[in-house]
Amino acid sequence: MPNPTAAMLVIGDEILSGRTRDANMYHLAGELTKHGIILAEVRVVSDDRDAIIAAVRALSGAFDHVFTSGGIGPTHDDITADCVAAAFDTPIGVRDDARALLQAHYDRAGLEFNEARQRMARIPDGAALIDNPVSTAPGFVIENVYVMAGVPSVFQAMVASLLPTLTGGAPLLSQTLRVDRPEGEIAAPLGALAEEFPDLSIGCYPFQLNGAFGANVVVRGTDGARIDAAITGLARDLGL
Amino acid sequence: MPNPTAAMLVIGDEILSGRTRDANMYHLAGELTKHGIILAEVRVVSDDRDAIIAAVRALSGAFDHVFTSGGIGPTHDDITADCVAAAFDTPIGVRDDARALLQAHYDRAGLEFNEARQRMARIPDGAALIDNPVSTAPGFVIENVYVMAGVPSVFQAMVASLLPTLTGGAPLLSQTLRVDRPEGEIAAPLGALAEEFPDLSIGCYPFQLNGAFGANVVVRGTDGARIDAAITGLARDLGL
Repeated sequence: MPNPTAAMLVIGDEILSGRTRDANMYHLAGELTKHGIILAEVRVVSDDRDAIIAAVRALSGAFDHVFTSGGIGPTHDDITADCVAAAFDTPIGVRDDARALLQAHYDRAGLEFNEARQRMARIPDGAALIDNPVSTAPGFVIENVYVMAGVPSVFQAMVASLLPTLTGGAPLLSQTLRVDRPEGEIAAPLGALAEEFPDLSIGCYPFQLNGAFGANVVVRGTDGARIDAAITGLARDLGL
Repeated sequence: MPNPTAAMLVIGDEILSGRTRDANMYHLAGELTKHGIILAEVRVVSDDRDAIIAAVRALSGAFDHVFTSGGIGPTHDDITADCVAAAFDTPIGVRDDARALLQAHYDRAGLEFNEARQRMARIPDGAALIDNPVSTAPGFVIENVYVMAGVPSVFQAMVASLLPTLTGGAPLLSQTLRVDRPEGEIAAPLGALAEEFPDLSIGCYPFQLNGAFGANVVVRGTDGARIDAAITGLARDLGL
């Protein structure tokens, strides 16, 4: 069975403005890889209704799973839930189960469950909730789209509760061979290797260390024996 | 005059596999913001010909500028130049000016200018070269697409040589107000502020520190006096 594919949609101005360096994409990419789901595309869009709706539709139609982060808090710039509902032409409103969770949370904390906070109970009709063990306000799943928070600790907790419920594929394995030679000198054997192992993904990542050029060759796939064979063969070809 | 818009296209498997945490997006976002160019969307795609071509076409049509990173080295997985040429239905081949630059570089280094390295002189017809002061292999510009290297030191050098040639807009300014209160308690005044200052972008980024919730309110725009007025007004409304 081929590995399932996924896309991620990062929503919010903080990455596009350069204020924040991405953390959620990096986290999700690693977790999906371990789970055997291929992250095939990421998009980052701003808090713009049309951009979010268009991206949800495009990615939802093209990949098995879509994971979003950001824009589900209580403030005016949190428009993700409404946009996802619109992308699927689905009604949205404050839902009893989400409201009950949040009401209990704010009662325990002695805080007012005010109108802004009730926004976080807005869930599209038919969606299932995603547990938020950090700060209660739930994410949700509708069709193949998993809507999660942007705060990294909350995003990571939601991913942790979500991934075991998804059917993964064979784990995506990788081995790296460091070659202390410029990549231009190993390109020919690498190309031959890629042709010999069309079932593997072979990437070459150059680096410069103390003025000398080198490259990390990363071989990825689901068959550990094939990866071994590729790495061993390359090392032999390069006389390592 | 409105600020120009831009998109970025990150090409390569290393970010999608979780091997590498993004650095180029973060760098470009900050530089564009200083230069008054609005980064409106980022896409990350793998070393997949169809995905790259589709993304180049979509982004080139939607934004004033498109910046790509990755996939212009000498190895088999470096297919960006050919894909960008295909996106614009433009012929591509080894070009004399790029070949001369590289030939001189490898002559100086006493290295062979072999077939793999000659791949880096493949430039679409009509494109202009982008200088690479780090490792010589040039980037290029075709239509509104700026094709640059993925290695961060090279990417950053190319951005530095490129940005002064682009017409920017009024610098995008921002001020941040840290509020030691959960964002759910400041959402109402924030929403009112966003309505009062529709010319500004007002974002709210919650954090948790030593168990207490707080939020950074970031106000962005091109008019420093308006930003001052918004921040001052918010601080007053919140009794800070």
